[in-house]
Amino acid sequence: LGQDKNRVTVNIYGEQYTIVADERTSHVNTVASIVDDKMREIKASNPSLDTKKLAVLTAVNIVSDYLKVQEQLDHLQQKQAREEDEK
Amino acid sequence: LGQDKNRVTVNIYGEQYTIVADERTSHVNTVASIVDDKMREIKASNPSLDTKKLAVLTAVNIVSDYLKVQEQLDHLQQKQAREEDEK
Repeated sequence: LGQDKNRVTVNIYGEQYTIVADERTSHVNTVASIVDDKMREIKASNPSLDTKKLAVLTAVNIVSDYLKVQEQLDHLQQKQAREEDEK
Repeated sequence: LGQDKNRVTVNIYGEQYTIVADERTSHVNTVASIVDDKMREIKASNPSLDTKKLAVLTAVNIVSDYLKVQEQLDHLQQKQAREEDEK
């Protein structure tokens, strides 16, 4: 544990973060740029938000999307399991 | 647009947020409690983080998970499309 961890420095919404991850640098960079984009998008429609609230609402947004994708995945996996049973 | 929007007040990491969403109240409450849990989990392993950085890192964490689930879903959808073709 920790031996093949990757340290990646990214810039999100004007601040530097050092992310310690199991994933590749390219994955971490993609993730950081999605968070940065999302924060700017939410700020554009709610200009009065401070950065802390903005970041929390960004997390809320992403969890909401995550749950929907997870649900789609669950349905598809159940469908495949049923099809396997029918063979 | 906006007519069937739902206003839900949630508490995340000690602060109140009013979320305007198309989704049901139960979905918004689940999302808020996932964000709250994740923030507390990340704070526990990084006690020196201020709330803004904590929220940004929480978003980073969730996007990372999101991309993985999205990838699984893509693979499964491709697999199903191939199986349909073989029929």
